[in-house]
Amino acid sequence: MATTMGSGFGTSSGMSGSENVESRETERLIASDKVEGTSVVRPNGDTIGEIERVMIDKRSGKVAYAVMSFGGILGIGESYYPLPWDMLKYNEALDGYEVDITEEQLRGAPSYSGDDDEFDWSNREWGTRVHDYYNTRPYWS
Amino acid sequence: MATTMGSGFGTSSGMSGSENVESRETERLIASDKVEGTSVVRPNGDTIGEIERVMIDKRSGKVAYAVMSFGGILGIGESYYPLPWDMLKYNEALDGYEVDITEEQLRGAPSYSGDDDEFDWSNREWGTRVHDYYNTRPYWS
Repeated sequence: MATTMGSGFGTSSGMSGSENVESRETERLIASDKVEGTSVVRPNGDTIGEIERVMIDKRSGKVAYAVMSFGGILGIGESYYPLPWDMLKYNEALDGYEVDITEEQLRGAPSYSGDDDEFDWSNREWGTRVHDYYNTRPYWS
Repeated sequence: MATTMGSGFGTSSGMSGSENVESRETERLIASDKVEGTSVVRPNGDTIGEIERVMIDKRSGKVAYAVMSFGGILGIGESYYPLPWDMLKYNEALDGYEVDITEEQLRGAPSYSGDDDEFDWSNREWGTRVHDYYNTRPYWS
């Protein structure tokens, strides 16, 4: 254990290689490859999916979305749900990002599939639809 | 190809699964898992290392650092160099993030190794050292 270590660090879990846990998360910082693969859960503990990646706004350097995936095998047939980053609150007890969304709300949520040729992040209309759906401020505003 | 696609999208390269390239990068957004693994190069085209991950500031949602790795095998013996995110400029011709840093500057740069127990991101002194070295504004200011 590091002698300079602050509070809130557990022992190594979900680490890759020989790196220490504090190199991937502190109270203030979190590594992209730690966010990726983390479960998305409902307040009751049901798992909805997992974070596939985050989308970074090049202009501001801010994370705009976390993309949640579920279903499919090896990326084929998977569905992807962009969630505005501010929606995600990490729940330590459930070991996942807690999102309060019902099955029905999820069915109507903006998503795309891995083989969806019509999807385009650069289409502002599509981004507006995501932010309208979750009632959050667009990352570009 | 998507009919709504803007300019600047190439054909699929470095993609995973069956996803389209526009789902991982647009003019405005870039996916964390596309940044990870991208080369870091000098202006003359020499490869210095590659991006291992980015560190996200939980409070602001902003990317604070890109962590460059080099050396080692399977994470053992690797060195990690936190680079302030604003330092990275993508160079399309070199297909990597261009950083103008000499061999000597790199030797003196703040870094840690995979088995370095003393490293602690939450130590503000350490962060200050990184930002002082590259003469950039600390992410927390």
